Amino acid sequence: MTGRLAIVGLGPGPDCWIAPEASAAVAAASDIVGYQPYVDRIPERAGQRRHGSDNRVEIDRARHALIMAAEGRQVAVISGGDPGVFAMAAAVFEAIEAGDPSWRTLDITVVPGISAMQAVAARLGAPLGHDFCAISLSDNLKPWAIVERRLRAAVEGDFVIALYNPASKARPERIHQAFELLRGCKSAETPVAFARSVGRDDERIVLTTLGDAEPATADMSTLVIIGSCETRFIDRPGKSPWLLTPRTYGAGR
Amino acid sequence: MTGRLAIVGLGPGPDCWIAPEASAAVAAASDIVGYQPYVDRIPERAGQRRHGSDNRVEIDRARHALIMAAEGRQVAVISGGDPGVFAMAAAVFEAIEAGDPSWRTLDITVVPGISAMQAVAARLGAPLGHDFCAISLSDNLKPWAIVERRLRAAVEGDFVIALYNPASKARPERIHQAFELLRGCKSAETPVAFARSVGRDDERIVLTTLGDAEPATADMSTLVIIGSCETRFIDRPGKSPWLLTPRTYGAGR
Repeated sequence: MTGRLAIVGLGPGPDCWIAPEASAAVAAASDIVGYQPYVDRIPERAGQRRHGSDNRVEIDRARHALIMAAEGRQVAVISGGDPGVFAMAAAVFEAIEAGDPSWRTLDITVVPGISAMQAVAARLGAPLGHDFCAISLSDNLKPWAIVERRLRAAVEGDFVIALYNPASKARPERIHQAFELLRGCKSAETPVAFARSVGRDDERIVLTTLGDAEPATADMSTLVIIGSCETRFIDRPGKSPWLLTPRTYGAGR
Repeated sequence: MTGRLAIVGLGPGPDCWIAPEASAAVAAASDIVGYQPYVDRIPERAGQRRHGSDNRVEIDRARHALIMAAEGRQVAVISGGDPGVFAMAAAVFEAIEAGDPSWRTLDITVVPGISAMQAVAARLGAPLGHDFCAISLSDNLKPWAIVERRLRAAVEGDFVIALYNPASKARPERIHQAFELLRGCKSAETPVAFARSVGRDDERIVLTTLGDAEPATADMSTLVIIGSCETRFIDRPGKSPWLLTPRTYGAGR
């Protein structure tokens, strides 16, 4: 049997956000490869091998998956969210680019999923309702200078900003530095949302403003959204406000 | 019965990309509201009312949905892709902000979906594997000057760029203007993808470079991806190359 490799997005957490194509790709696999907590989300099935690994070994995991596919296995590399957005797709194609030329002949598919910023936006209202950008604050693989350059560019373009990987134990200071930079060039009234574990039991959302935000609210399970000049709260009685970035721009100015 | 309104993402086309939460929200609705081609995608069901409308009447459609929800109906406003990304969520919350204060007490949920850029990225490899931005080229509701400002900022930040709504019959020149701007400040070798109707029968993908791209390739069903300085093709025998934006930045320079 010819080997295959599917890079599959499981969405941000609950099964209700896993697209049928992703469920089918997981069900069809002989081998499930992924970060252990994602592997744990897949029900065990007789005859299906499970290869859970630690975080921050994405390239090793990708190579392992490619080797198995080259041996004729049906491999599903699973990813939280969308594999194409700060997840496993880039790691697999990096491994292919640098690896055995025969890997380029493999049958490889990417199965998209709902990414964290979309689940967060859905909870909040419509904060991504206009042009936006997504930036990972991790500087494991890129210099911090490019993160700062992108944050400044995002302000210059007045994009709504979705920050992935805002903090980890190894680099707790980055989110503070990012907020310091943003406070220097955006209004203190800019709406900010910290959204942790959206869709899971420990979901926690904090709505605030750039001036009042406590950056330490963010941990590695948090996605942060920072509004554009147009983003605003819509108050409602007895509940948290909604967050809206309207489709119009500059209408009131 | 208390009225409810769900703003539901149907993904870019095929049923295999519709998350179970979205299918359930559609099934539970008494009334389906949406752009006619999206309504046509929902199987007819006895007792369920269907309210298809024309394009570019998003606010009227949102108000109609809110009025029905306020009357106690179970309304699903359907959207292609993700309702939070250049789709119906912003229109509904704009209507709420400007409308009857009682609408703020309605039970409103947003059901996320896979957006076009994610389906396109999945087809291409991993073009969104690093920081990226999403820009709508439509200037129906925003001045063209802000689009140009955002394109320039996207270049300054070296983001991968996903262009939504690149062209329509009413404004065929905008995509040409966008490419002219980008050609003035990005390498001619920058990878570019035009992806039309991904996931549907008339899917068509053109891979090229910024220097060689023919902007008229884009129509209103096309999503355009323009690489960062790091985005590159991975050649493979007998097939279109993959497109990769790696997770590392500046490693070779």
